[in-house]
Amino acid sequence: MSEIRQIGVLTGGGDAPGLNAVIRALTKSAILRHRLRVIGIMDGFSGLVDLKTEELELRDVRGILPKGGTILGTTNRGNPFKYVERLSDGTERIIDASGIVKENFTRLGLDALVVIGGDGTLAIGRELMEQHGIPVVGVPKTIDNDLARTDRTFGFATAVGVATEALDRLHTTAESHHRIMLLEVMGREAGWIALHSGIAGGADVILIPEIPFSLEPVIAKIWARQNRGSAFSIVVVAEGAHSKDGDQVFQSVDPVTGWKRLGGLSYQLAPVLQDKTGHEVRVTVLGHIQRGGTPAPLDRILGTRFGCEALNLVMRGEFGNMVALNGEDIVAVPLAEATNRLKLVDPQGQLVANARALGVVFGDEDPDDVLDSE
Amino acid sequence: MSEIRQIGVLTGGGDAPGLNAVIRALTKSAILRHRLRVIGIMDGFSGLVDLKTEELELRDVRGILPKGGTILGTTNRGNPFKYVERLSDGTERIIDASGIVKENFTRLGLDALVVIGGDGTLAIGRELMEQHGIPVVGVPKTIDNDLARTDRTFGFATAVGVATEALDRLHTTAESHHRIMLLEVMGREAGWIALHSGIAGGADVILIPEIPFSLEPVIAKIWARQNRGSAFSIVVVAEGAHSKDGDQVFQSVDPVTGWKRLGGLSYQLAPVLQDKTGHEVRVTVLGHIQRGGTPAPLDRILGTRFGCEALNLVMRGEFGNMVALNGEDIVAVPLAEATNRLKLVDPQGQLVANARALGVVFGDEDPDDVLDSE
Amino acid sequence: MSEIRQIGVLTGGGDAPGLNAVIRALTKSAILRHRLRVIGIMDGFSGLVDLKTEELELRDVRGILPKGGTILGTTNRGNPFKYVERLSDGTERIIDASGIVKENFTRLGLDALVVIGGDGTLAIGRELMEQHGIPVVGVPKTIDNDLARTDRTFGFATAVGVATEALDRLHTTAESHHRIMLLEVMGREAGWIALHSGIAGGADVILIPEIPFSLEPVIAKIWARQNRGSAFSIVVVAEGAHSKDGDQVFQSVDPVTGWKRLGGLSYQLAPVLQDKTGHEVRVTVLGHIQRGGTPAPLDRILGTRFGCEALNLVMRGEFGNMVALNGEDIVAVPLAEATNRLKLVDPQGQLVANARALGVVFGDEDPDDVLDSE
Amino acid sequence: MSEIRQIGVLTGGGDAPGLNAVIRALTKSAILRHRLRVIGIMDGFSGLVDLKTEELELRDVRGILPKGGTILGTTNRGNPFKYVERLSDGTERIIDASGIVKENFTRLGLDALVVIGGDGTLAIGRELMEQHGIPVVGVPKTIDNDLARTDRTFGFATAVGVATEALDRLHTTAESHHRIMLLEVMGREAGWIALHSGIAGGADVILIPEIPFSLEPVIAKIWARQNRGSAFSIVVVAEGAHSKDGDQVFQSVDPVTGWKRLGGLSYQLAPVLQDKTGHEVRVTVLGHIQRGGTPAPLDRILGTRFGCEALNLVMRGEFGNMVALNGEDIVAVPLAEATNRLKLVDPQGQLVANARALGVVFGDEDPDDVLDSE
Repeated sequence: MSEIRQIGVLTGGGDAPGLNAVIRALTKSAILRHRLRVIGIMDGFSGLVDLKTEELELRDVRGILPKGGTILGTTNRGNPFKYVERLSDGTERIIDASGIVKENFTRLGLDALVVIGGDGTLAIGRELMEQHGIPVVGVPKTIDNDLARTDRTFGFATAVGVATEALDRLHTTAESHHRIMLLEVMGREAGWIALHSGIAGGADVILIPEIPFSLEPVIAKIWARQNRGSAFSIVVVAEGAHSKDGDQVFQSVDPVTGWKRLGGLSYQLAPVLQDKTGHEVRVTVLGHIQRGGTPAPLDRILGTRFGCEALNLVMRGEFGNMVALNGEDIVAVPLAEATNRLKLVDPQGQLVANARALGVVFGDEDPDDVLDSE
Repeated sequence: MSEIRQIGVLTGGGDAPGLNAVIRALTKSAILRHRLRVIGIMDGFSGLVDLKTEELELRDVRGILPKGGTILGTTNRGNPFKYVERLSDGTERIIDASGIVKENFTRLGLDALVVIGGDGTLAIGRELMEQHGIPVVGVPKTIDNDLARTDRTFGFATAVGVATEALDRLHTTAESHHRIMLLEVMGREAGWIALHSGIAGGADVILIPEIPFSLEPVIAKIWARQNRGSAFSIVVVAEGAHSKDGDQVFQSVDPVTGWKRLGGLSYQLAPVLQDKTGHEVRVTVLGHIQRGGTPAPLDRILGTRFGCEALNLVMRGEFGNMVALNGEDIVAVPLAEATNRLKLVDPQGQLVANARALGVVFGDEDPDDVLDSE
Repeated sequence: MSEIRQIGVLTGGGDAPGLNAVIRALTKSAILRHRLRVIGIMDGFSGLVDLKTEELELRDVRGILPKGGTILGTTNRGNPFKYVERLSDGTERIIDASGIVKENFTRLGLDALVVIGGDGTLAIGRELMEQHGIPVVGVPKTIDNDLARTDRTFGFATAVGVATEALDRLHTTAESHHRIMLLEVMGREAGWIALHSGIAGGADVILIPEIPFSLEPVIAKIWARQNRGSAFSIVVVAEGAHSKDGDQVFQSVDPVTGWKRLGGLSYQLAPVLQDKTGHEVRVTVLGHIQRGGTPAPLDRILGTRFGCEALNLVMRGEFGNMVALNGEDIVAVPLAEATNRLKLVDPQGQLVANARALGVVFGDEDPDDVLDSE
Repeated sequence: MSEIRQIGVLTGGGDAPGLNAVIRALTKSAILRHRLRVIGIMDGFSGLVDLKTEELELRDVRGILPKGGTILGTTNRGNPFKYVERLSDGTERIIDASGIVKENFTRLGLDALVVIGGDGTLAIGRELMEQHGIPVVGVPKTIDNDLARTDRTFGFATAVGVATEALDRLHTTAESHHRIMLLEVMGREAGWIALHSGIAGGADVILIPEIPFSLEPVIAKIWARQNRGSAFSIVVVAEGAHSKDGDQVFQSVDPVTGWKRLGGLSYQLAPVLQDKTGHEVRVTVLGHIQRGGTPAPLDRILGTRFGCEALNLVMRGEFGNMVALNGEDIVAVPLAEATNRLKLVDPQGQLVANARALGVVFGDEDPDDVLDSE
């Protein structure tokens, strides 16, 4: 095993609160404990293709712990194996730039590469190691908390916090006005944010991708509440939630413009619910405020620990792994096991069962049972 | 002037953070200082038609200061002069129920009525006084801060706070991703929330109803920022903002469903901006979280002082007035002067000029000047 | 096993954010799913001695999820086995009132008792079961997170959140003024809050009870930072931290009044640090704001799940257990195993090692190493 | 009037949230609108003596709007007219360095100096103008809001916000535990923060410097509340509050160490209140978290407008003035009128009267009246 003197670090995919905590911890422990040089690679893998880098020193990571975003920039594009090259005539073509990445890795004098990102980014890291022998350590990132093999990912606590605060605010105005409030939160494949914030914020209905919904039990819940004297209801919708009914398609694509968008589902649901219940419905689409801003303490701690332990993996030469939270400990997990598998909400699990015990409706209930249960 | 022993209080129109502060201050000072009885009237004027009331005692207002909404309930309907009566056959008809209000006022043994609400609610209060001799004192409420004759209204500080926090969060994710973030805030007629939160949150573009916009200077601003190395921009849009161009109509009505909605304008603007700038655009529609939740300290203080001084007006027999903030003092203003007049943002005023000096674009600029100025 | 129709619930010991979430979940699931009656016992066990109770219905637990404190009241006194009885002549005597508790339990027609509290409260519950056959289920509560056999307790996340926000605020003013900021947080026996918030808030020094400190490495850290150009430092002190030096005793008892108090340690440390470093030192003692106010989402979710699963234990007749968090699941743990054992920070553990890797000083370092390491 | 091409800016005295907003607005509008160069002077006037400066460009002020503190650094020392010079032998002497300041002002090629600070800093600015002809414009800063001639100062809203949030948190724990909570807030000469946060946070007792207090009415209030069933009380204490009784001196100096400190008064009051009421008392000393951290929106807006209008004064050559808030407008006020005068709370004013009407006790009441009034 060769000595480690210089490491590169990049962030890929969507941003998540806690990315800067990872970068800071990695950089501080690398410099303070091991006297390494740390090279920051800008805008994900594209910075390795285009050689956009800058050395990270202690002063560069000072004060970034409470900051959202990533000081390295990030992008959803930039897969070096399918790199979009812009030609001088303005056209584009897709090339395999992974060889360039390998060359640049060597040219920069890097001894290891720390790749912080989601499923896709980690898979690219793994491929760079397998095909080009680049020593890679991964740090998992997904605000949706849907990555297999780690108990939690950073960013999730912040997103749940933002959504819960929104629910608290909606509660008071819903109550005063006898209204139905629809809150759309993130979660394309997995409903973790909707489920956690829905429980924390006392939602009456939670619609998640893992449990396709019908309108009937939702409407039954609103009626049941009204019969009991609660003339308002709070509905949390994950952006990826969808109806199980063939006859009425609720989805998050604008039927006119074809523009896929946040809010698509909610703005379809709202008028229908208004029609069928007679209550006014109001929609809030949190969008990117869920993934921006100062990270929750938990996300800062998890990011910090991921950064420290990623460096430890590098120093021990345990490449091809990513760090992961397992109970109270940060452990190493092979990248091969972590990618291409989603961690979804278990509709039969304890967390959903707890919510159901409180009367929360997920949309798969028998409407009569909902009416009776209140 | 007859002795005051019992007063009624109601809240009308949309809710605003600080309503409970008014109710609490009115009730506490009425009971503690003057040994009055306070009758809470539920759901606005409709509670006076249908006789839904309950006496407010000290324990009823305990702990409500930090709570959003209104413990009395509120409604946008219920004008007693145009009251919607539901008949036994399910149909509705509109009647003048103001006489019933007068009867119920007497039957309840009320000596005065405190009416907390916006322009419409205060106008009804004034009409009840003029036509039926009900002694009315008003407390102005509008989250948009667009009521004439009072420097500020409660709820506004809370709304600006929520919008500013959203902007802070959007900044970090916009920066990391080189994106354009559109934030839609409240403000149908007046752009106060957009303007204040836009300045506090460091927005690059602020679109308000008082300044009809063109797309060109907005796009010029985004380009100018990119040329300077800032590959992201933050755009704040008041829901009532609108284009000045005849050829491209931006408005907040859904072109397909006809459903007037929050987000309407933003979801039209977003794809156009994306097309013309090549940057990804993301939309957040705050909706009712701006008017819910715990009130900002300023709104609690203003609501408290309004409540105390409204009672002072009652005790001094100064009916037909509303309380208003004038500098540091709460003063009395005739209802006749306060209603039917909006306080709009002055496009030539100091606040807008300050924002322009920082490079904020409002959409009425010459695009070339915008490009040059950076 | 007799049928369960009516259960009692009480909260004992200090309050913690999330208590109301437990009460709400227990009550809602008991009523909605099992048609039980729920009797709230006021002010801990003393409510069972003095028969201060009230039935909890759905409306009593509405809206309490985001509220701190406990709607049942609580007290640190009231152990029925050593009950302080006030006699008519004003004197007090200590009696065994556990028999009275048994009688009242029967008189109230209770079939089970849910006891929410810390180590002491749970031990009393266990004794009531062992000596008097009262069927008890426990819910663990400690804001310090130092209870054995559960991964986390509710309230902890809120406390860490409050302390972290304070550190964020102190950072900016410390930096502008070149000052040392001392923040004292809770933690008499265990330093979890100091450690978590210290990492999340980017502290330079963290003093916890588990690691007795010397002044020298602390001072060395402040000097080392100054040499590097950071003329400010942030020190987090757990209230139970103490010096390992015999010659200079730092403790949390006021040397003059003998009054044990929050801030005791910090106010002794501050002038000494000021003397030895030449920097101005400022002290903040968070005190009870750490345990009050709206619970963090995590605490609401944990409290809610504890409440649901405590009821499940009751319905399955699994008495003598408490609920506990184990990974992602709520499990049952015998009360006998959970009480009388503290979960302390492991000075050799991964979390402390991570903090040390970032340069955080705990006060047990060699001062020369500290000076060198920066 | 000579042309303005280059201006200097410094911050003096304690920091206040909003300082960076002033610096940013000044710099952005100077560069974008007038193509000036802006020289940042570090650590107050001492940077003009020691020539510690750096040019501020647009990128230097990017992202600082939501940041507390001041990017220029500040100090409470550094009066050039009484400058503390450190000699090579380690001793110090006090010299008049104002001539050096004048020389350096010229050497730097500055055409104007913008001085952001409190009473003391502004007075120095005025003296530099009068004695040395340096063209000075002032920006007032005091977190205590006690500066004459401006309606508000930035930082005040943030401090009131932090204190109000602390009161919200203390309320829930006080209520659950039947305790007295003492919160000490800033305010040496003026009680504005205590008064505003006390009203916003629903305090029962507010002690401010402007109204010397006796213990008797305070104790009467606590008893009166207990008689009414509220076995807890919230007391807000401004750090500069003091007793009017000769026999029992409450002050903020530690009787043993002589160390003047935050918390001094509260820690004396606490055991006495505990003794006399039989309730447990808990103390929180907010300290510097009141002046740190992200500024409230209002403070950002006020700081921004002050910065813009200070530059306008410079460009119009209106030196010797400071900017000030007057109603909704920023106006110019002669420095001579603004310094050496404090704006204190009027014990007979409307704001105090409003608080009294709610039953708030200030400590100057007749104890019997307090007991009767509840």
